[in-house]
Amino acid sequence: MNSLKKIVERPQFETFVLTVIFLNSITLGLETSQEIMANHGHTLHFLDRLFMIFFSIEIILKIIIYKHRFFKDPWNIFDFLIVGSSAFPSAGSISILRALRALRALRMISIIPTLKKVVSSLLSSIPGLGAITGIVCLLFYVGAVISTRLFSANFPEWFGNIGKSLYSLFQIMTLESWSMGIVRPIMEKHPLAWAFFIPFILVTTFTFLNLMVAVMVNAMDSDSGETENKTRQNDKEEIIEEIRLLREELKELKIEKRIKEKRGKYSPPPGMNP
Amino acid sequence: MNSLKKIVERPQFETFVLTVIFLNSITLGLETSQEIMANHGHTLHFLDRLFMIFFSIEIILKIIIYKHRFFKDPWNIFDFLIVGSSAFPSAGSISILRALRALRALRMISIIPTLKKVVSSLLSSIPGLGAITGIVCLLFYVGAVISTRLFSANFPEWFGNIGKSLYSLFQIMTLESWSMGIVRPIMEKHPLAWAFFIPFILVTTFTFLNLMVAVMVNAMDSDSGETENKTRQNDKEEIIEEIRLLREELKELKIEKRIKEKRGKYSPPPGMNP
Amino acid sequence: MNSLKKIVERPQFETFVLTVIFLNSITLGLETSQEIMANHGHTLHFLDRLFMIFFSIEIILKIIIYKHRFFKDPWNIFDFLIVGSSAFPSAGSISILRALRALRALRMISIIPTLKKVVSSLLSSIPGLGAITGIVCLLFYVGAVISTRLFSANFPEWFGNIGKSLYSLFQIMTLESWSMGIVRPIMEKHPLAWAFFIPFILVTTFTFLNLMVAVMVNAMDSDSGETENKTRQNDKEEIIEEIRLLREELKELKIEKRIKEKRGKYSPPPGMNP
Amino acid sequence: MNSLKKIVERPQFETFVLTVIFLNSITLGLETSQEIMANHGHTLHFLDRLFMIFFSIEIILKIIIYKHRFFKDPWNIFDFLIVGSSAFPSAGSISILRALRALRALRMISIIPTLKKVVSSLLSSIPGLGAITGIVCLLFYVGAVISTRLFSANFPEWFGNIGKSLYSLFQIMTLESWSMGIVRPIMEKHPLAWAFFIPFILVTTFTFLNLMVAVMVNAMDSDSGETENKTRQNDKEEIIEEIRLLREELKELKIEKRIKEKRGKYSPPPGMNP
Repeated sequence: MNSLKKIVERPQFETFVLTVIFLNSITLGLETSQEIMANHGHTLHFLDRLFMIFFSIEIILKIIIYKHRFFKDPWNIFDFLIVGSSAFPSAGSISILRALRALRALRMISIIPTLKKVVSSLLSSIPGLGAITGIVCLLFYVGAVISTRLFSANFPEWFGNIGKSLYSLFQIMTLESWSMGIVRPIMEKHPLAWAFFIPFILVTTFTFLNLMVAVMVNAMDSDSGETENKTRQNDKEEIIEEIRLLREELKELKIEKRIKEKRGKYSPPPGMNP
Repeated sequence: MNSLKKIVERPQFETFVLTVIFLNSITLGLETSQEIMANHGHTLHFLDRLFMIFFSIEIILKIIIYKHRFFKDPWNIFDFLIVGSSAFPSAGSISILRALRALRALRMISIIPTLKKVVSSLLSSIPGLGAITGIVCLLFYVGAVISTRLFSANFPEWFGNIGKSLYSLFQIMTLESWSMGIVRPIMEKHPLAWAFFIPFILVTTFTFLNLMVAVMVNAMDSDSGETENKTRQNDKEEIIEEIRLLREELKELKIEKRIKEKRGKYSPPPGMNP
Repeated sequence: MNSLKKIVERPQFETFVLTVIFLNSITLGLETSQEIMANHGHTLHFLDRLFMIFFSIEIILKIIIYKHRFFKDPWNIFDFLIVGSSAFPSAGSISILRALRALRALRMISIIPTLKKVVSSLLSSIPGLGAITGIVCLLFYVGAVISTRLFSANFPEWFGNIGKSLYSLFQIMTLESWSMGIVRPIMEKHPLAWAFFIPFILVTTFTFLNLMVAVMVNAMDSDSGETENKTRQNDKEEIIEEIRLLREELKELKIEKRIKEKRGKYSPPPGMNP
Repeated sequence: MNSLKKIVERPQFETFVLTVIFLNSITLGLETSQEIMANHGHTLHFLDRLFMIFFSIEIILKIIIYKHRFFKDPWNIFDFLIVGSSAFPSAGSISILRALRALRALRMISIIPTLKKVVSSLLSSIPGLGAITGIVCLLFYVGAVISTRLFSANFPEWFGNIGKSLYSLFQIMTLESWSMGIVRPIMEKHPLAWAFFIPFILVTTFTFLNLMVAVMVNAMDSDSGETENKTRQNDKEEIIEEIRLLREELKELKIEKRIKEKRGKYSPPPGMNP
């Protein structure tokens, strides 16, 4: 058990896993070419099964070694889900799950520490944004209900139901063909449609931009703010240190004095000597 | 009266109102589906009337309790307008007002404190932006007058009157199909049209971006700036506190000395005793 | 002369000019409506001539009063050019100059102090950006020369000469229809065209964004930086003031001591009195 | 040798090279006009060969003077590659290489110091972004593999192979016609396609924006942060200087005292004199 742990925690093991992920990413890319599949399909399928077995063993080994602690690290759960999800398609022919095997390449993030750090710092700022996300969702829902009621009769393709409306509103928020493609045609039947769409664009792009900038500023602030605070902290401590030294000397002065005074009191003063 | 106030101000009451708003949001969403309306239309209409009555009672209760103070909180006015506006459509068949009932879902913002705080902070930064907004409006108005005069004859669909021009200029500012959709066709008749539209794009996108970033930076600055100022304030006070302690000790030293000196003056000096 | 100056510098005079500009802006807007022009064209033309005379007198008055100093304020030059340019079209029928009369509405900026301040702060940050602007221009010129050479034969409409190429590259930089409208059709004849356009998009949008953000950050920094520096300056001065007070007291202490010592030296010491 | 170095390092030499680059940029621009080429093609070709010879001599001179140190400055390598690459096309008729001669105009950046500084500061922030760039590339590769597998059968034009998919995904990330042009047509055959494209848009635009803002903030921070740190550094030193002065005075006080005391000890006290 302990020896297994030692092997798994060796840097060489990580490098090896990384290499396998990298090779797998390449074979997954090659599989998309019909030409290559026609000539080397068997080899690629064989390699893919090999990689699959390797990843399964890797995950199982880690679960055996770390037990329940394995699932405490969200990156392990990420690895587990990606490897686990690609264990199924061998059974059926669900092409979507087969396509999702490409997500395995993202495991590189969980293995290369610098990538992991960047993603972690991006994700860490997300929980603090629950409120704005909530508002964006609310705005989209309200916008979808209103636009479905108003435009579903005339434009069923774009606003036929809430799902279609949500999609169309997302497209409008990204400003893609919002006017020439959607709002101008609508305005031919509903001349006041701009009074719904232009405020919607202003409010959502503004809120969304806000959301994005907030995430980024958070991420940066935590960096630059910390070093700045440290410099200031150091400055403050240097100053206070100086003042303490000063008090120290003052205290010495006082103590010397008191000693002198005491001597002056208990021993006869110099003029009283003879 | 007082007992009513106690009930209304209980957290359970808020939670209950929130639940009702949430349920109403769902029924409003369901009403957009023709299929569901065909089967459960009556139930949904009945529920809607029920919710309407509930919201009316809630608002009336609050007005009775808080009287004129009720209208001092802008969030209450927001609630009042949303609930009030949906009281009308029962009379006629004005489909737009019926659609706007979906705005009720936005009342969640005025009830959930974190959402309320985010929106308040966003809105609080708007008044300081009056000047830039004024400039943007002025630029749009001037642009609309110029483009209407220049292009209304050949392109009445886009620049037929000031309203249409304002809409087209907004579309151009969002960069949606500005060139392929609008400016290239215009340039076939007015080859120098780019000399109007490209500066317009540069100036307005720049000013608008400025407006947006200003709002956001305001909102953030007030946060981070405050905590930073507090840290600095604390640093300063700590240092000054240190210096005060020092002065305190110095004062002590002086007082001790003066006492000694005074004793030296008014009581006979030690050498004068015998 | 002096009495004229007094009249012109009264706040009521400014308010009056502002009102006239505002009224003129409205009549300029009304002139764009064919219907209104058919019924009230004469009145509007008459009013326009009246406004024109008023503005001319206003500018001439100011030039008489301030003489050469008038042209030292760039805002006055702005006013002069706008009013001056609309003095011409009365001669000919140059519709563009007539349309540009709408720029008069922008004079509101030079009269309302808050608008003036915002625009000034935006403009003040531009000179510092000469370098980036230079690089953007260079990139566009190089891009236009290359794309004209490569694509003018097959796509004369978009890249027929340097002017057309510059316009198309600007459109591509704004990302409007860059792929579906321009690059995909080009790639059918020049399959490697993406190797020119994608780097061009990455480099120019990046540089342009950089330019915009730089302008804005400059504008903000000068605000927030100043207040922050002031706070820090104040903090520093408060601390140093405290330290000075401390030295003051220390000096007093020393002086008292020296006086005592001197008394101890020149007047006989207390024990030497009898 | 030394005299050559003196000539090359004179500011007049730089100005002369800059003038030649400028003139060459103009002739390169003129060469794109068919009309001018028909009339003055020979002159322009002759001038171009002249410029080519001049640049070759310039680079060779510098290599002779600075030897291997020449290649230590990346700007020199940049110059070398640009001049070197345009030495080839004289041999063949490779139109692309001939077009790339326009890149010579970019040599202005390596000669004008302010432009050089701006570009250097932009580039200097890039190495620190390796991690985010890696993640963006990974996301694009995974996205391209998945979309090729899913959509290549029905939409070979957009997602026929990994290369086409990468291009289409880049287009989608720039939001150009992503919905009306690509995703809506796909959704007619794969109704759940939005579940791939909308997350892709959210994740990549977010990461990309992040990348861009990071570059810019880095560039700015290094400026403003430094001056701020300097101000703070100065503030701190001023305060500490004040405190040192205070300690200095305190020390004086002590020394005076000790001298007095010593005198009091070793020389007879004043009262003991007679």
